[in-house]
Order: sequence, then structure tokens, then C-alpha cells
Amino acid sequence: MDTCSTSGSRATVRRSSSSSSRGDLFGAILARGPVASATADEAWLEALLAVEVALARAQARVGLIAEAHADAIEQACRSSAFDLEVIGREAAAAGNPVIPLVRLIREAVGGAAADEVHRGATSQDILDSAAMLVARRSVDHILGDLGRAAEAAAHLAATQRGTIMVARTLLQQALPTTFGLKAAGWMIGLDEAADGLLHVRDRRLAVQLGGAAGTMAALGPDGPALVAAFATELDLVEPALPWHTQRNRVGELASALGIAAGALAKPARDMVLLAQTEVGEVHEGVAGRGGSSTLPNKRNPVAAISALAAAHQAPGLVATLLGTMTQEHERAAGAWHAEWTPLRSLLVATGSAAAWLADATEHLVVDEGAMQANLDRAGGGLLAERIVDALAAPIGRQAAADLVGSTARNAAGAGDGFGAVLRSRVAERKELAAIDLDVLLDPRGYLGSADVLVERALALHRGRGAPR
Amino acid sequence: MDTCSTSGSRATVRRSSSSSSRGDLFGAILARGPVASATADEAWLEALLAVEVALARAQARVGLIAEAHADAIEQACRSSAFDLEVIGREAAAAGNPVIPLVRLIREAVGGAAADEVHRGATSQDILDSAAMLVARRSVDHILGDLGRAAEAAAHLAATQRGTIMVARTLLQQALPTTFGLKAAGWMIGLDEAADGLLHVRDRRLAVQLGGAAGTMAALGPDGPALVAAFATELDLVEPALPWHTQRNRVGELASALGIAAGALAKPARDMVLLAQTEVGEVHEGVAGRGGSSTLPNKRNPVAAISALAAAHQAPGLVATLLGTMTQEHERAAGAWHAEWTPLRSLLVATGSAAAWLADATEHLVVDEGAMQANLDRAGGGLLAERIVDALAAPIGRQAAADLVGSTARNAAGAGDGFGAVLRSRVAERKELAAIDLDVLLDPRGYLGSADVLVERALALHRGRGAPR
Amino acid sequence: MDTCSTSGSRATVRRSSSSSSRGDLFGAILARGPVASATADEAWLEALLAVEVALARAQARVGLIAEAHADAIEQACRSSAFDLEVIGREAAAAGNPVIPLVRLIREAVGGAAADEVHRGATSQDILDSAAMLVARRSVDHILGDLGRAAEAAAHLAATQRGTIMVARTLLQQALPTTFGLKAAGWMIGLDEAADGLLHVRDRRLAVQLGGAAGTMAALGPDGPALVAAFATELDLVEPALPWHTQRNRVGELASALGIAAGALAKPARDMVLLAQTEVGEVHEGVAGRGGSSTLPNKRNPVAAISALAAAHQAPGLVATLLGTMTQEHERAAGAWHAEWTPLRSLLVATGSAAAWLADATEHLVVDEGAMQANLDRAGGGLLAERIVDALAAPIGRQAAADLVGSTARNAAGAGDGFGAVLRSRVAERKELAAIDLDVLLDPRGYLGSADVLVERALALHRGRGAPR
Amino acid sequence: MDTCSTSGSRATVRRSSSSSSRGDLFGAILARGPVASATADEAWLEALLAVEVALARAQARVGLIAEAHADAIEQACRSSAFDLEVIGREAAAAGNPVIPLVRLIREAVGGAAADEVHRGATSQDILDSAAMLVARRSVDHILGDLGRAAEAAAHLAATQRGTIMVARTLLQQALPTTFGLKAAGWMIGLDEAADGLLHVRDRRLAVQLGGAAGTMAALGPDGPALVAAFATELDLVEPALPWHTQRNRVGELASALGIAAGALAKPARDMVLLAQTEVGEVHEGVAGRGGSSTLPNKRNPVAAISALAAAHQAPGLVATLLGTMTQEHERAAGAWHAEWTPLRSLLVATGSAAAWLADATEHLVVDEGAMQANLDRAGGGLLAERIVDALAAPIGRQAAADLVGSTARNAAGAGDGFGAVLRSRVAERKELAAIDLDVLLDPRGYLGSADVLVERALALHRGRGAPR
Repeated sequence: MDTCSTSGSRATVRRSSSSSSRGDLFGAILARGPVASATADEAWLEALLAVEVALARAQARVGLIAEAHADAIEQACRSSAFDLEVIGREAAAAGNPVIPLVRLIREAVGGAAADEVHRGATSQDILDSAAMLVARRSVDHILGDLGRAAEAAAHLAATQRGTIMVARTLLQQALPTTFGLKAAGWMIGLDEAADGLLHVRDRRLAVQLGGAAGTMAALGPDGPALVAAFATELDLVEPALPWHTQRNRVGELASALGIAAGALAKPARDMVLLAQTEVGEVHEGVAGRGGSSTLPNKRNPVAAISALAAAHQAPGLVATLLGTMTQEHERAAGAWHAEWTPLRSLLVATGSAAAWLADATEHLVVDEGAMQANLDRAGGGLLAERIVDALAAPIGRQAAADLVGSTARNAAGAGDGFGAVLRSRVAERKELAAIDLDVLLDPRGYLGSADVLVERALALHRGRGAPR
Repeated sequence: MDTCSTSGSRATVRRSSSSSSRGDLFGAILARGPVASATADEAWLEALLAVEVALARAQARVGLIAEAHADAIEQACRSSAFDLEVIGREAAAAGNPVIPLVRLIREAVGGAAADEVHRGATSQDILDSAAMLVARRSVDHILGDLGRAAEAAAHLAATQRGTIMVARTLLQQALPTTFGLKAAGWMIGLDEAADGLLHVRDRRLAVQLGGAAGTMAALGPDGPALVAAFATELDLVEPALPWHTQRNRVGELASALGIAAGALAKPARDMVLLAQTEVGEVHEGVAGRGGSSTLPNKRNPVAAISALAAAHQAPGLVATLLGTMTQEHERAAGAWHAEWTPLRSLLVATGSAAAWLADATEHLVVDEGAMQANLDRAGGGLLAERIVDALAAPIGRQAAADLVGSTARNAAGAGDGFGAVLRSRVAERKELAAIDLDVLLDPRGYLGSADVLVERALALHRGRGAPR
Repeated sequence: MDTCSTSGSRATVRRSSSSSSRGDLFGAILARGPVASATADEAWLEALLAVEVALARAQARVGLIAEAHADAIEQACRSSAFDLEVIGREAAAAGNPVIPLVRLIREAVGGAAADEVHRGATSQDILDSAAMLVARRSVDHILGDLGRAAEAAAHLAATQRGTIMVARTLLQQALPTTFGLKAAGWMIGLDEAADGLLHVRDRRLAVQLGGAAGTMAALGPDGPALVAAFATELDLVEPALPWHTQRNRVGELASALGIAAGALAKPARDMVLLAQTEVGEVHEGVAGRGGSSTLPNKRNPVAAISALAAAHQAPGLVATLLGTMTQEHERAAGAWHAEWTPLRSLLVATGSAAAWLADATEHLVVDEGAMQANLDRAGGGLLAERIVDALAAPIGRQAAADLVGSTARNAAGAGDGFGAVLRSRVAERKELAAIDLDVLLDPRGYLGSADVLVERALALHRGRGAPR
Repeated sequence: MDTCSTSGSRATVRRSSSSSSRGDLFGAILARGPVASATADEAWLEALLAVEVALARAQARVGLIAEAHADAIEQACRSSAFDLEVIGREAAAAGNPVIPLVRLIREAVGGAAADEVHRGATSQDILDSAAMLVARRSVDHILGDLGRAAEAAAHLAATQRGTIMVARTLLQQALPTTFGLKAAGWMIGLDEAADGLLHVRDRRLAVQLGGAAGTMAALGPDGPALVAAFATELDLVEPALPWHTQRNRVGELASALGIAAGALAKPARDMVLLAQTEVGEVHEGVAGRGGSSTLPNKRNPVAAISALAAAHQAPGLVATLLGTMTQEHERAAGAWHAEWTPLRSLLVATGSAAAWLADATEHLVVDEGAMQANLDRAGGGLLAERIVDALAAPIGRQAAADLVGSTARNAAGAGDGFGAVLRSRVAERKELAAIDLDVLLDPRGYLGSADVLVERALALHRGRGAPR
């Protein structure tokens, strides 16, 4: 355990361990899940080292350097200790952390192999390739949590197919629907977001290797072959050209993350609204979470709220990463460096939203009785559309709409149920004798294609298979 | 010609025609190209009408309404005049423009068919489907201009493969490269951006049809079949579920546009920098544009600047459209309505950037002499990396680096060329007798894989075929 | 009336008049209020003309040009018709609309005075000064609607000081509060936002006059005196230096608008939530608005929703205008031009949000009975904090918290009221004999300083006086 | 020194110390200066503790709790060790870190005083007040670096008042100006940005104290007096009302930071452009920084580039913090929590930009010879505006413009100097005999009010006094 004093000597702060290097105070809320550590300095450093090793291995494979030298480089990168603080400090003078890291690796390698470290590469080759590694690992985690959330939503869609509830438009009660259909919508949104991330992960996360000017001049004629071998080593895509200042890939990664955050925010917002005290249709069933000692009546949907909090941060970060696509000539003066922090923040925010939403969805407790009670409270008013349609045949659409409209107003004013008022009105008009209000006022009969849609959506979901 | 007074009676404003409804004053700069009119009110209204017609046609096809009624609806929508101002005014009370439009269509249709207008649909079904139509037409235009720009870049890449120039990193001269490689990078960025838009256009722009609550309740069991027919009518994608509040599609469209804007901004920035008076390597060869009456020495790269100006606007708009993915329940209270203006602005901005960049690239005049002169000015200093590599064999890498470094400093201080100083230094050391500086100082010999990369990129570009 | 065919000949579009040049279809929803026309092309053109007139008048005042020439320029600008389409078209070649406008003004002036038009100015001087005029007029409108909204909120705060309701945290019922305090919070937020806009309007909206390079070289030694006179003519601030590429003023204007949009969104969101069918504490009392023909049970809060829709658009636009502060040298290559459209959109969005929120607040109908009913439904549970405090004295804080907590769980499980369960528990323990539950369970006694806070806020509001 | 293994056992990572808890790898570049540690977890924890102490002290002062209890609380907060990881872990269940922190403080205090910890407050009271403390300390640092940068710019403005150089518009050479005027523009932008931050710091950073629902119900009638005492303790502003969901203050802080970032980016961009190899008018004179071992000819302006990289991140973060102003009822479900990370990131980014720009400006080396050479290269062409004005008197403005225009084209085509061609043309026309081209072609005579403007700006700057 590491104990240190804060400045100003007002308090002493302890960290139980140094494994989680950032965000302890807010991190459990805003940086939940595995992405925080997958994007931490330690993970970045490991990725940078992995890239230098892969470069040496690939160069040995195409014959640019001796196999023994590649072995030495790999050995040194695996077994040596590299001091983040030294690297960080020297990075300020160099303009990026690769330059001091290469110096340290060369020291660790020693001998003739030292000269072969980082051969023919430019700092950006290493940093961009490492960023893609970090992104791939983070995206894998995000896909895992998106998949968990989608699976939980699929479970809800399947098990709650028959759970009837109120559909709400503009936050007003509108018509009956099923909770299954609502959950199926969440699931489709999450699955589509995962598709976008899968596409980026498998097709767009590429190695970077162009040398100082993107011509691979220092590699002689072996550049293209080396890029292929390098991509194989790192299991990343081989790009057609170096992309030092052609940042579509970064923009696509950022966008896919932003879309995922949006797809995560939608069910989170729905859950928060359904959990309102006055609605009471769901709550998060995690013991000991979301209670309040001073307000024991509260049951805060902490997971959904935290998912929203994380997701809110994504759009601004995506905008930054689209804006920094404007990169000058063969290496940008600022726009490249400006990518590092927002990309990390965006991965963490999206990962945190995914982890929280998976949690919220998996633990969602549905109160079917409350759903029914909210539906009943409208007393049939939610079936107005259907009743107008049914009355339109005998008395015309306009007369039907007028009758239903005045019924609704009358019911609201008198405090009577819409159905009760409607029955008396319909009874008064003999041209409506054939109308069977028992049928028309049954919300179960006015669910349209809800069930078919749920089935179709679940079939699509099942067809995707397990997350790859 | 329509002439009207401005408020305050200070001036009189004329519009030569009403065909261009927006942005006359700045529009030629910031709303260039066909997207401005493809997203104008008139185009939206036409799309709304096309959607109502397609709905009726599809309903006739699946047997929900009579063929004659569909004919009547189509006839009325095609031949009637609809007053935008009336629709707009009533939209304020209704909350969207579809409600008054449906009223006007019903009036125009008359008779029994009037009741079949908009049958079973909700306003959002119509507006979302129309938005997708507007988006598809706009994206077609944007793809056209992206394609023109990419084709012009491909032409430059092919014809300037051998044009040697300075590569610049962090805006400092770094190494030799070719203008062909630079243009190939632009081309790849534009082609990749087009791929993203093609994907969205062909796979993600879907019809919307769910009725008031997304269950298609008012359509009875025919909902799913109708959606398929509706999608066929409009040549849009058939979605698995209604997506009233599941806005991945909007987020994907916005992102693909934002990425395209970024890919357009990159070459525009390069052109502006290359056109600097002190660099002078390119200019826009459009007679009568970019001059200044008071400053006849100027040759402003108006098209590239205007492309940048348009592209700068995209990231913030994308952020808005990602943020509005958080939509409540079955219809959002504000976030849906918040999409309309930013989507239009984003289509216009991206379209304008594409139109300007196509113009800039097609008219780009390359001054090969200026490129050579800028290269020569460094007097061999841009080959330092190569020379260090060559000297490393006889005297070791560190000694080589030191020699080249002190040569560079000395040359800079004395005003002599790097090459001249280097020759005298090398001559002093007999272990360097075998070094052939004539070869090493020839930038044409240090272009690495530039040519191979251009060839590879062009092959990829040609393989895409004409824009679909 | 102007009737035109849309492309594709599928429909005919009419505009009742050309006075509103943009946004008819969505404008009534998303561009409500006077700002749309205050930022339309016609208003911009009028502002550009007003600036050229003011420049000539100021030059006459400091003796740079003859009074008669200034008269001629003013006369021509006031009485001539200027064709927006011609200006727009030529703007594309020139890079901005001022160059063709100056040509047209010179033609209209004729004679010797023609040479004095635009003398010593650069296009950006005119465009920036006009932008500040347009901004000032728009901000005046926005302040008017912010003031209306704040005044309506103040009225609610004053008249509903005693209206007790549920306070909700994390959308869970928490404690009692008053509707007066909620409305006072809205009012303070709106007043503070107005203060920010007033500061920008009165201290930061400045004329621009620097000539082609910001040195005022073409004005000889009279530059500084001319700037002062120019500022007086336009009633704008005199800046210390030309601010062609020092865009703090634009950033401050944008930020103040963005903050106002945020302050408008807060009450709009509250209203939408309070208007939910299940909450039912407010609705918008505007006859004929927000109803639904097919869903007569709905009472959509159209004004609040539209305010939210407009406000959602602000943050992304502010980001664009902060990003474009990075302007190169003495005139930016793109970042300046990129301001025009977002600034217009941001003024319109904020203005629309203000107009809608003023409407929503002025027409807000408060259902005090519903507020009381929602409060009663908790059966005393909202007073848990208070009861723990009261029981802590006799039995200790932890025991008190445990007793209240188990009471809450028991009441929820059994469907009994919290108060009823609590009474029986307290009766069981003789150390609690002195506890007066009638007092403790009365929410009116647990409103803390709500009333004092409302009074204080209203005093602050009244002290601001009428909007200036 | 703390040494730990990274996951995957591929490498070992060391941290020399734990004092800097975040961002070692990129932090020296992107989180430069004192704000990183002023916003670190340790600083937040210290601020949270300071707020709890201040609350107790204030409560003692107004007589709500015993002085001895306040002493005990203060003593415990000052002398105890609080484990960030425990707090973070429990925060996830509670929804914020204050709840576990209060538990730990109560444990540390013990006895009767323990019950008085956090009395009457809600978690948000503590967290918001602590955020304001963290912000104030960070803003103080930012003001310090903004002040350093402005002071360095003022020094340049004063010492380089007479340094003539090329003014560039749209990145084209336009007219002569002075480097003093350019630096004065930077200075004014920085000073104005500082004014905005000073306003926010001194008038808008307020304590938060409202209790669970904003009514201060648990404080009885003493709420308002307590808020005043609490504000005094923390030296923060006393707000009129609790601002739990009225987030103007956060929006204003964010905006002032975003504007500062923009004002910092402007000079940084200018420096990067002036440092281009082809322009060569400035470089950063810091030994050992910005060099490149493989490219010894490079002199990268690392500080300016890093300032740009940091500043690029601000607009997106500001947008997030304006978007989260939409907070529900009495405590927001997500939008409040969403503030924490972006606010921290924005403080760090702005602070880093300020630290780097201060560095860049203080070390800026101006090459007056290069400025003169760039000016000479135009051969008088930059004085075209002046020459047209001078020739207009004898031959009319249009003829003068034509003569100068054709001179410019001819000079460009023939490779002759503009001045030389002009002299021969003028000599041919006897009506121009009185024209003294020696005077007209001297750029020093065409600097307009540059010197007066610099003087005025410096006077303003000096009048501000030292940063408070």
C-alpha cells in the first residue's frame, strides 16, 4: 500500500494499490469496466513495446535484419523495466514518447542489435500502431459488454413478449405495446452498434509504417513486404498507404464508438424514466445499490444513470476526433497529438457506458403489475385510435373522431373512465349497435405486429452468433 | 423577379428568382453545389409527398386499400399545389409539419379516398422516411462530387508520379517525396470516405413505418408485408423494426458525413499551405477567381479555403446528431425534432466541401519548378537520414549522426549548402573514401516506395469503378 | 403569391409570400420568433449597407471624405435595390459577398462619390461589423424572450410560493418542496443567462476596421479617430485593436448564447417531465395545440418540446465557433468564413428556444391537486430524513435510521402507507412516547427555507428592472 | 520507486514516484503545467475534505453544532488517511464518492461529533463545492500561465514595434505590418481571455448548499445564514439559491476555459506557420528541444505544436458541459455525473495550452533578417494598394488599378521585381512625373497606425496590473 500526503498538508491520501493508475475517485462510476486499464499508461507502454518487437520480428522475416537481432530486441522489451516517468519527461522535449522509449530500448538491447531497434520507422509509425492495438483491445472489451447488454435485452424481449404496457410518445401515454418489443428495440440498437465496431475492428484498425515522410525511404525496396509482415505480426490490417495524415481510420473508430454510446444511452434513458416513482415499472435489482440512508423511499437506478453519464461524454469527443482529421502535409503540427487524450477518453466513456448498461439490463426487475396498472389507469383511452377506426365504418371518420374526442374530454373532466363514458355514448346510438366494445377496449387485441416484430428481431440477434 | 423591401426601409433587396430558397448571400460560398437545393424546403415537401404516395401504393399492393384510391392519392399529390407557409404555420401547433400536410392532401384528394391518405401511419413515419429520401438524394450528390475530387486526385497522382518535392512534417521540411504520393493519399482518403457513405446509403437508409406506437397496430396483421412493399416503392431499406427512437441510422449517416468532411478538409488544408506565397508550389487556375483589386499580388486559393470553411462546420453538427440518439420511449420529446436542422446543415456543409474540393483539385496548377526549387534550397539537408545510414557502416551510427548533425548546424550558420559542407567533411576522413556523395545527395534516389505506393493506390481506386 | 414547381415535377409548392426566406417547413417549430428574420439574408444585406453608410458618415465626420459624398453614399444605399442573387453568385469567385456588394454600391452611387465607397476598408471590416449588428439585433430579440420567460417564471414563483409538491432527485421522489421554489430556480437561470448576453451586447460587440492588414494603412494617420467615429455611428463598441483574427468576441457571443440555450432547456425538460401522463402536474394551456386527432387522450407539451429541440442544437454550434478561433495571421483561410453559418444557426436556435419557453411558461397550467396527490401517495415516506433526525435524539441516529428504513421497506411490501406503519412502530416503543408524528408527517412543516429562498430570488429579479 | 508488471507479462513498467497519478506517458505533452496535479484525485479528495471541514466550521459559527465538534471534525480530516480506492469502489454502489467518504470521516471522527459530520448536506452539496474549489485553484494556475504568455507577448510587442514584416491574409502575402502589432494582437486576446476567467473565478464560483431537495430543510431556519458562513469559510461566492440543477455556473466556467483555449491557439498557430522552413521568421530557442536525430535540419516548434494539440481538445469538452446543463428536477439523472470528467479534462487541456504557450512565447526567437528578406522578395508588390491610391489622383482609380495589376502580372511572369517593372511603366507616362516611387515603394512608410495601435494595446495591458 502506497500512502502519500496531498499538497497543503490538509489530508493524507492512500491508494491501496497502484494497479489502477487513474480515476479512483470517479473511476468506479465514470470509468467502469476493463477499458480503463486497457487504455492506461501501462497498457499504452506495453503496446508501444509490442509494436517495436513486431517491427523487429517482421524485419527479420523479410530479411532486413538478422533473426538474432530480432530475438535480442524481443528479449529486452519483454524483460526490461521501463520507467514511465522518464519517458514522459523526455517526451516533452521530443514532442512524443516514442523517442525516449527507443533510447531506453536501445540501452536495454545493447550491442549490435541496438542499432536495429526502430529501424526505418518514425515515431508516428510506432505510436499509431500502438494506438490501434490499444483500440483493438478496448473495442474487444466494449464488444463484450455490448454483447452482454444485448443478450440481456434479448432475454427480456423473449421472456416479456406478452407483457403488455403503455407506449409513450412525447412522454405522454399513447397506445398499448409490449415490454418485449421495447426490449427488442434496445437489443437491435446495441447489435447494430456492435456491427459498426466489428467492422472498424476487423477492417480498419491498421498498422502504420511509412518512415519519416511516408515513403518508407529508409527501408529501401522492402517497405511494402515489411508492412505486410508487420501487419501479420500484430494481427492488424495492412493499409494501402501510410496514413500518417489521412485519418479516416481514426474518424471511423471514433464514430463507431460515438454511435455505440448513443445506442447505450437510449435504453438507459428509458430505464431511468420507467423507474420514476410515479411510473414504477422497473427497478435495478442489485442489493445494496441505489439506496439512500436519509431517503429510504428511494430506489435510484444507479447503473442506468451511470451509463447515461458516461454516454453523454461521447459526442463532444467524437467531434474533436473528426475535427483533428485536418492534418497538414506528411505529419500534422498539433492535430495528431490532439488525438491521444480524446481517443482514450472516448474508449473509456463508451466502455463504461457498456459495462453499466450490461449491468442495468441484466439486473432489471420488471414490475408487470405496475405496467398493467398504468395501462388500466387510462381506462381504455389508449385505444382511441382503434375505436375511431371501428366507428368510422358505421358513422364516418369525422363523426367517429368527434365522438371519441368528446368522450375523452368528458371522461377526463368527470373523473370517470374513458371506457365507461364510451359505453354510455355508444349505447345511445342505434347505428352503433353492432360495435363490440368489450373487444375494442381490450388492449391485448391492439398490439398490431408487436409479437411478429419481436420474433423477427430475436431471429436476427440469434443469427449474429456469439461476439467474435 | 421578386423585389421586396427589407425591414426598416433602409434598403431594397431583390431576388432574381425564388428557385434558390436559402442562403443566397453566403450560399455560393458555404452552400455550393446541388445539396442546398436537394435539402431545401421544396425538396423536403416533395419527399413528404412522395412518401405519402408510396404508402398508398404499397397499401394497394398488399390489398389494404383499393387501387383506385391509391391512384387518386398519387394524382392529387402530383398535381396539387401545397402552400409551404400554411404547412409551416400549422406545424407549430401540431408539433410537426406532417399533420397539416395530411390535412391538405386529404382536401386535395377528396371523396372516399381521402380517408385512405396516411392510413395507419404516424407523422414520424412520414417525416423519417422523407428524411431518408432527402438524405439519399443528397448523398448521391455528395458522392458525385467526392468522386470528381478523387478522380482529379487520381489524375494528379498518375501524372505527377515523378514530380519530386519536399515532404513536410510538423510544417518543417523533412525528406523528399513525390507530389504523386501526396495526391494518392488525398485520393485514398476521399475514396474511403465515399465507401462509408455508400454503405450508409445502400444498407442503412431505411423506410420508417410503425404507426403511433411502433406496433403497426392500425394496420392489423398486414404491417410487415406493407413495410416491405413500402420499402420497395421508395427504394429504401426495409428495417427489422420501426426505429422511431432507435437512431443508429441517423448517427451512422451523420458520422459518414463527418468523416467525409474530414477527408475533404485534409487536401484543402494541404493546398492552402502549398499555395502560400513563400511556398508557391500550387495555385488554383480559375480565371477571375481569387484575385484582389487592391492587392494584385494575391492569388487566393478560394476553392480550397471554401472547402475548409464548409468542412469546419461538420464535427459540431455530428456531435449534435450523436447526442440526440438519446430518445425517450416510443417518440422523443425534443431529441427527434432536434435532428432536422443539423442534418440539413450537415448535408449542405459536406456537399459544399465536396463541390469546392472537386473544383480545387480539378483546377489545381502544380508548379514543378517551385517544388524543385524548394527542394534545392535545403542543399541536401533533406537527405540527412540517408547519409547517416550510409556513413554508419564505416564509422558507426553515432559518429555518423554526429558528423551529419554538425554539418547541418555548420551549413545553417555559414549560409553554405549542406551538401558543400558535407563534401569537405567527408573528404577529410579516409575511412569514408568509398562514400559516393553524388549518389547519396540525389533526392531522386531516396524516394523509397513512393512509386510503388502510388501504383497500388491507383489500382485500388480504379477497382472501385465509377460511382454508383 | 409565388408558385413554383419542384424538381422532378411531382408536386407544386407554393409560398404565400417571400418575406420569410428560409425554413418555412420546419421554421415555425425550430426557428420560432423574430430572430429568424433578423438573421435572414435580407437582414444581413441591410446590415452590410448600414455599415458602408456608417463608414462613409464617419469618414466625413473626421474629414477623410466630403460630406456630400457621404450623403450620396447614404442616399444610394437607402434607395437602391440590390440583387441578393447577383451578390451571392459573384461572392463565390471573390470569396466573400462584400466585394460584389461594393461594386453594386459604387454603380448606384456613381460620380466622384463612388470612389469613396468602402474607402480604406477591407471586406472583413464590413462583414464583421455587419455580423455584430445582426448579432446585436438578434440578441435584443433573445433578451426580450428570455425576459418574458423569466417574468412568467417570476409570476409562478410568486403565486405558487405555497404550492407544495414532491422534489425529485435522480427522478425519484425525495422530499417535499414548493413549486414556487422550482419556478424561482428557472427564473434565476434565465436571468443569469440574460446577464451574460447583456454583457456581450454592451461591452463586446465591436466594430471592425483595420484595412487589408489590420494596420489601417490606407487611412493614413486618421485610422484611430475614424474607428471611434465609426463605432459611434453604429452604436457598437470601439475595440483597442482590429480583431480580424483575434476572435474572442465571437467566442464570447457564442458562449453566452450556448449558456442561454442551456438555461432554457432546464425548465423545458422539467415541464416535459411534469407533464407526463403519470405525473400530470402541469400542462400547456394553449387551445388547439398539442392535441392529437387519433390519440385524444394526449396533451403534448409542444412548446416545451420545441424549446428543447432548439436548445439541443446549441452546444455543437458553440464548439464550432470556439474551434474557429484558431485563425491564421492577418486573415484566416477558412476559419473566418466558417463562422457565418453556425453563428446564424446558433442565434436562430437560441432565439427559438427563448420564444418557445416564454410561450410555455406563460401558458403553463399548474395542477395543484395533482401535486398534492403525488405527495400524498408517498404516505409520509418523503419525510424520512426529518423523522430520522427527530428519532435520533431519543434512540440514536443508527437505530432511528434502521427503524425508518425497515418501515419504508415494510410499507412498500405491504402496500400500507409509510405513515401508518410508522405510527404502529413508534407506538410500540415507550422511549418514543414524546414523538409527535402528526407534526413530523406534515410536509408543510418540512420545507426548510423554500419560502425565504423564493423571496430572495424574486427580490434579485425585481432589482434587475425591465430588459434594457 | 514503485515497480509493477503490466498485464500479459510482456514488459515491466516503473513509475519513479506516485506523485503524478495520471498521464505520465502523454502528460508531459498534453497535461503540462500545474493543473494536472491540481485536478488529480488527490486534489479532489483534499477539496472534498476541505468542504466538509468548512461546513462544520460554518455550522459552529452560526450555532448549529458545538465548536468542539467542529474542531474534532477538522482534526480528523486533517490528520487521517483516506483510501482513494475504498472510496472509489463504494462510490459505484452509492452513485457518488461523497457517501463513502462521509462514512470514513465519521469513523475517523468517532464519538458524538461523528453525527455532526455532513449534517444537513446532500452529497451534491459537497461535490459541487469541492468542484468549485478545484476549479478555482486550477483557474489560478491557468491565469498565471496566461499572464506569463501575455507578458511575453507584451515584451515582443514593445521590443519589436519597429520590426517590419509581411502581413498575410488567407496565407498570401498582402501588405507590410510589424511584428510588434502581431504580438500585441496575441497579447490582447490572452488578456481578454484572462478577464473572462477572472470574472468567473471572482463572481461565479459559488458554494453549493441546499440539502437533499434544495430547500435546506434539514437545517431548519438557519440555512441561509449557514450558506453565508460556508461561503466565507471557503472564500467562494454565496449564491442566491442552491444551483443543484441550475448549471449556468458550470457553463460559464467551461465557456471561459474554451475561449481561453481559443485565444491560446491563435498565437500558437501563427508561430507554427512563421516557423515553417520556407518562412523561417521565428523559432523556439530552447536548447535540446525540437531537434531530430535523423533529420538534423528540422527545428520543430514543439511548444507551439503542443499548445495547439491541447487547445484542439477544448471545444468538444465545452459542448459536453453546455449540453449537460439540461438537468432534471432537483438532481439530474446522469447529466450531473457527466460533468466531472469533462470539467477535469477541460481544465487540464486549457492549463496545458497556457503552460506551453507561455513557454513558446517566452522563448520565441525572432529572425528580423528573415522577415525583411520575405518582405523584399515581393519587390514592392505588397504596396500595390498604396500605389493605386497614389496614382488614382492623376489618372483615375480604374486606370491606376489596371496599371498596377498589369505590372504585378508582368513582374510575376518575367521574374522581374514588381518595383522595377513599375518604375519603367511610370516613367513612360508623363502625367505620372510627380509620383515619387522611392517613397511609395518604401514599406516603412505604409504601416498606417501600427505603432499607435501597439502603444494603445500596451497601455491597456499595463493598466491591468499583475494577475490577481
